[in-house]
Amino acid sequence: MNAPHSPMSVEAVQRGAQWLRSSGSHADVVISSRVRLARNLWGLPFLHRCSRQQRGAALNLCKQRLLGLGLCPQMLWVDVHTLPQIDRNLLVERHLISKEHAKGPPGGSDEPRGLAVSLPDESLSIMVNEEDHLRMQVLQSGLSLSEGLHAIDRVDDAIESVLDYAYSPRFGYLTACPTNVGCGIRLSAMLHLPALKLLGDVEKVRRAAQDMALAVRGFYGEGSEATGDLYQISNQTTLGKGEAVLLRELETEIIPQVIEYERAARRILLERKRRTLEDHVFRALGVLRSARLLAPDEALTMLSLVRLGVLAGLITDVPEQEVSQLFVLVQPAHLQRLLGRELDQQKRREARADLLRQRLGAR
Amino acid sequence: MNAPHSPMSVEAVQRGAQWLRSSGSHADVVISSRVRLARNLWGLPFLHRCSRQQRGAALNLCKQRLLGLGLCPQMLWVDVHTLPQIDRNLLVERHLISKEHAKGPPGGSDEPRGLAVSLPDESLSIMVNEEDHLRMQVLQSGLSLSEGLHAIDRVDDAIESVLDYAYSPRFGYLTACPTNVGCGIRLSAMLHLPALKLLGDVEKVRRAAQDMALAVRGFYGEGSEATGDLYQISNQTTLGKGEAVLLRELETEIIPQVIEYERAARRILLERKRRTLEDHVFRALGVLRSARLLAPDEALTMLSLVRLGVLAGLITDVPEQEVSQLFVLVQPAHLQRLLGRELDQQKRREARADLLRQRLGAR
Repeated sequence: MNAPHSPMSVEAVQRGAQWLRSSGSHADVVISSRVRLARNLWGLPFLHRCSRQQRGAALNLCKQRLLGLGLCPQMLWVDVHTLPQIDRNLLVERHLISKEHAKGPPGGSDEPRGLAVSLPDESLSIMVNEEDHLRMQVLQSGLSLSEGLHAIDRVDDAIESVLDYAYSPRFGYLTACPTNVGCGIRLSAMLHLPALKLLGDVEKVRRAAQDMALAVRGFYGEGSEATGDLYQISNQTTLGKGEAVLLRELETEIIPQVIEYERAARRILLERKRRTLEDHVFRALGVLRSARLLAPDEALTMLSLVRLGVLAGLITDVPEQEVSQLFVLVQPAHLQRLLGRELDQQKRREARADLLRQRLGAR
Repeated sequence: MNAPHSPMSVEAVQRGAQWLRSSGSHADVVISSRVRLARNLWGLPFLHRCSRQQRGAALNLCKQRLLGLGLCPQMLWVDVHTLPQIDRNLLVERHLISKEHAKGPPGGSDEPRGLAVSLPDESLSIMVNEEDHLRMQVLQSGLSLSEGLHAIDRVDDAIESVLDYAYSPRFGYLTACPTNVGCGIRLSAMLHLPALKLLGDVEKVRRAAQDMALAVRGFYGEGSEATGDLYQISNQTTLGKGEAVLLRELETEIIPQVIEYERAARRILLERKRRTLEDHVFRALGVLRSARLLAPDEALTMLSLVRLGVLAGLITDVPEQEVSQLFVLVQPAHLQRLLGRELDQQKRREARADLLRQRLGAR
């Protein structure tokens, strides 16, 4: 738990997490790319039909095999069900586990489930006993879906060499939820679209994506609002579509279109509405450098505009990477970890404002 | 028109206008006190029944007698009907003439009417041919209604020695509007109530004042919203009440109560809600130091909070007087005068933001 750069340490946000490095292609618009694979074990019921004992058996089997595989130089194992709530939330904020995995199944929050994470970059993570027995993810900065897909294929093959997957010759890999059946792959990219938002054009993107059966969600997945002007675009179903089709749709069709659309919006703002853009951007920085109380949503909204200002060359005294890290550090669990104690909502708002003033050089 | 410290020059706000000096008693809450007297000439109809010729005659008579009186060391005369609109607006923003006087009577904006102003302090001003033939005002900073009343009594006596007033033994001084009949006096104080506003208690003050037949209005008189948390409290009628009663009601009863109420609110904020207060105050300063576009209402709202912050000792690098002057300088006509050219609304918003950043030391 106290391994260097453990995802349970806040320092890892600054030094570790690959997806927060603001590198990779199209990093001006694409914050990160994620490839997720759902797999289940042969000979065991799907999780919602498992007994506690069966879940425990699945967990132990997976843990043993995953750690034995040598998938990466350093792999951390976490028994999620034994963690205090704040550490579970920290993993959610870090996009390493889902909200559901943090909560546990309807059965109880101490139902056995786990997480394997590659250290220090956190680019590979494998949830055990979430909705499926295995959910593996490769998360990297920039637009890197092909690369992520190759990486996860290698991981998948390696795991399949030590574990038997539930597979049907007719449907493909079997999953607890029918939308994941088939190749069981979900590809998604987190896009930062502040200029489209300012111009009121985000809805067009959302509709265009929906027309292509793609889902558009907020920073924290299904049902979350797009705070911070961050939008996740992902495929909705996997049944009947091969990896190649999914990848083409996203990485070579829709996402590049949205990237160009956002870049055009940024150019329009800079060239034709420069004053308005400057007003939004510098007010946002002014608020972050002045406020004494900040709710998470407002912090993200302001950080989003500051990131736009940095990328547009308007703000020159704040590094872009600092802003990207703050997107995560202002979240409740990270904030409390950073301060080393639990805080109620009011105290978190104070701490969030203090952190932002300090990190953004309030003068 | 180019006299030193003429009210048509913006410099006068900084060096002249007495009421903007933030001095006098209770200046932490009372921005300024105003005493106004309405008088009409004997032998001439009220203005709305005057012909243009009669108005011209009234104007000439008053101008000649007022300038001949030596009411103050330096008295400026302005033929308001010959001024460009921007200069009329400037006089309104400076609280030297009413909006109606700037517009002119329904007859036309070039109907003869004038203004006499004491220079350089602008504390005495006399409108000729507004609603009444003569409307004189003494405007000073702080709570100074008795002083203002004495001052205007001396002016009134002096004028009455050279002009015959319309007077009825039964009703007193006759005025065009019955609410001014009697002693014809209106007393008002402009109060800055940001703490009551933050605590949501301004409505109580408004109701209490109304119960005492006092009017509560905004920064720019009747019908104006209380932008900048500035509230004018004044008597509503003069008929049947002597000066002494009006003065007692305002200066020794209602206004001291409101002052104490506001001070208590400031203490509550400082002692029990300090974070919230700091948040409001520093955000306001942050916006003024960051924005690239500012509408007048938002500028006043933010300046109000900054003034509160300065008076509460939270903001230490901005002088209070600077803030008070900015309340006037951000108004459209002053802003355009300051820049030396007419600007459309968008350009004014830009200029206002630029001015505020410059004057408040954006860093």
